[in-house]
Amino acid sequence: MEQLKTLRKGSLVAGGAGFIGSNLIRKLLNEGRQVVVVDNFSRGSSNNIPLDIRNSKYLELIEADLSKESAVMDVFEKTKRHSIDEVWHLAANSDIPAGVQDSSVDLKDTFMTTYSLLRGMKAFNVTNFHFASSSAIYGDLGDEVLHENIGPLLPISNYGAMKLASEALISAAAESFLSRVNIFRFPNVVGVPATHGVIFDFVNKLILNPAELNVLGDGTQQKSYLHVVDLIDAMLTIRSRDRIGKIDFVNIGPVDDGVKVSWIADQVVLRVSKKAKINYGDGNKGWIGDVPKFCYSTKKIQSYGWSPRLGSEAAIIRAVDEIAKQFGV
Amino acid sequence: MEQLKTLRKGSLVAGGAGFIGSNLIRKLLNEGRQVVVVDNFSRGSSNNIPLDIRNSKYLELIEADLSKESAVMDVFEKTKRHSIDEVWHLAANSDIPAGVQDSSVDLKDTFMTTYSLLRGMKAFNVTNFHFASSSAIYGDLGDEVLHENIGPLLPISNYGAMKLASEALISAAAESFLSRVNIFRFPNVVGVPATHGVIFDFVNKLILNPAELNVLGDGTQQKSYLHVVDLIDAMLTIRSRDRIGKIDFVNIGPVDDGVKVSWIADQVVLRVSKKAKINYGDGNKGWIGDVPKFCYSTKKIQSYGWSPRLGSEAAIIRAVDEIAKQFGV
Repeated sequence: MEQLKTLRKGSLVAGGAGFIGSNLIRKLLNEGRQVVVVDNFSRGSSNNIPLDIRNSKYLELIEADLSKESAVMDVFEKTKRHSIDEVWHLAANSDIPAGVQDSSVDLKDTFMTTYSLLRGMKAFNVTNFHFASSSAIYGDLGDEVLHENIGPLLPISNYGAMKLASEALISAAAESFLSRVNIFRFPNVVGVPATHGVIFDFVNKLILNPAELNVLGDGTQQKSYLHVVDLIDAMLTIRSRDRIGKIDFVNIGPVDDGVKVSWIADQVVLRVSKKAKINYGDGNKGWIGDVPKFCYSTKKIQSYGWSPRLGSEAAIIRAVDEIAKQFGV
Repeated sequence: MEQLKTLRKGSLVAGGAGFIGSNLIRKLLNEGRQVVVVDNFSRGSSNNIPLDIRNSKYLELIEADLSKESAVMDVFEKTKRHSIDEVWHLAANSDIPAGVQDSSVDLKDTFMTTYSLLRGMKAFNVTNFHFASSSAIYGDLGDEVLHENIGPLLPISNYGAMKLASEALISAAAESFLSRVNIFRFPNVVGVPATHGVIFDFVNKLILNPAELNVLGDGTQQKSYLHVVDLIDAMLTIRSRDRIGKIDFVNIGPVDDGVKVSWIADQVVLRVSKKAKINYGDGNKGWIGDVPKFCYSTKKIQSYGWSPRLGSEAAIIRAVDEIAKQFGV
C-alpha cells in the first residue's frame, strides 16, 4: 500500500480550474497521476471541472492566491504526501484589455504567480515546469513570420509583457535548479468551458440582443485558432519528447494562417441568431494591446511529428457549437 | 524669471548615485537640464557624485525606494516644478550572484523599480524613457553572435531575467502611453566610481592580501568591456537620433571580442601588487549565472555612426588605474 502510494506521482496544475486546465487534468488523471488543482477562482470555477473528475479521489482542489509566496509554500507543504514532481502553470489574467488599463492585474495574476511558484519549487525541490506562454510575447511585428528564434520581442500588452517576463524568470531558474522546462507559446485557443474570448463574447452578445452583433474593430483582424483538444495533445507530446537541453520553447498552433474576425462573426450568427445584423467598428485592432494579424510559425512543433486534427476554421466551427451549447442554445 | 524656469526641462535619474548614473548626470546638467537623482543608496552613495555637481542648484537628490509605487508617486508629486520630461532608469541590483541565490533581490531592485516607474510616468504623463538593459538578457548562447534580432532570449541569472522582464513591460508601455523609448543593452562597463565588478574585486583582494590573488573560475572567461565615458556618449548619441519608431533596442559595446579574465588579473597585479601570485579556480564560470564567453554584436550602433574611443583592452587598463586610485593606491 505504502509502495503504491509512492509510485503515483503528483502534478500541480496552477489555474487548473480555468479553460485549459480543466481540459488538461483529465489527461493527467488518465496517466495515473495525482492531480492537485490550485486556483483562485477569479475566473476559474470548480464547475469547469466535469463532475466525474471532480469526485476522483486522485484530484485535490485547493483555493489559493498563487501570486503570494506564502500561499505557494503552504500549498507545497500541505500536498507533500502527493510526491509532486511537476508543475503546470496555467494561471494568468486572461482579460487582456483589463491588464492594459491597469498593469497591476497582469503583474499579480500572470507574473507574480510565476515568481512565487518558482520560489516554492526551489524550496520543495520540484524541478519539472510546464508553462503556458503566449504568442502575445512577440508583439505586433506586421508580416514578419513569428518563429521561436526571432527578436527583439515587443509585447504590446501587459499580458504579453508579463508572459515574456515569466519566460525570462523561468529561463534563469532552469540554469539554477530546474531539470526540465517546457515553454508553450499558445495561439488563440477555443473550446469549452469557455470563460472569455471572441466566440464567447459574440454568443453572449447575441443572447442579450438576437437582432444585432456589434464587433470591436472592422473585422479584418486575422488570427489562427487552435481547439483546446489539440492544444492539450501538443503539450503532452512536447512533454514526453526525448531531448538534450533542459528548456524548450515551442509555438503551438495550427498550420494555416487563420481566419478573420468577420468570418467568426458569420459563424456565430449562423449558429445562434441567423437574422442578426453584424455592425463593425473602426480600425483593425479590437483594443489597445490587440495584435491585428500575425503569421505564427509552427514549423518547430511540426518537426516533432505533431499536427493538429483541426485547422482554424474547423476549430472555430466546433467551438461555436460547443459554446452555444454551454449557453444552452 | 518664470519663463526661464519653464524652459529648463527636468530629467529624473533612477539609481543616479550609482556608478553609471553619477557619470551621466554631469552630462545632463551640461545640457542645461534640471536633474533629479533618486536612489535608495543601497549601493549608490551621494559620495559618488563629485562635489561640484552635488552642490549645483540644478541637482536635487532624493532618497527613495523606487520599487514601491507609492514612493515613485511621491517623487513625481514633489518634483512637479521641475517639468520632468524624461526618466533614465539605471536602478538595479548589481550583485548578480546575490540575485541568483535569492530571486527577491532582483525582483525588487531591478524589476519592481521598472514597474513602479512606469506607473508613475503614466500617472504624471512623462513619456520619454531610457532604460539600462543588459547583455545578460541573451543568456549563454555559446558562439552565437548576439545581435538585437535573435531569440529565444535565455537569461541564466535572475538579474538578466529581471532586465528582460523590464524590457517586456516597457515595450507594452510604449504601445500604451510612452512616446519615445531607448533600451540600452549594456556590456560590462568599467570605470569609476566603481562599486562592484571584476576589477574592483581584484584590487580589493590585492589590498587585503598583496601576495595572492584568488580568481573565481579558471580565468578563460572572455568578455568585452566598455569604459563608462564611452557608454554615456553612446546613450546620448542614441537619445538624440532622429527616427521613426517609438522604441529602439541597441547593444552598446566595443567593437572587439573582449579580453580574458586572466588578462585582467595580470593588469591588476601589474598595477597594484607586482609580486602577487594568481591562483585560478575550476571551470569557466565564476558563479551560477555568469556567462563565460559571448560575442556581442555592436553593428547596429556602429551603423548609427558611433564607435567607442577605447577598446576592451584600453578600457580595462584605464579603469584599473582609476580604480586603484579610488582605493588610494
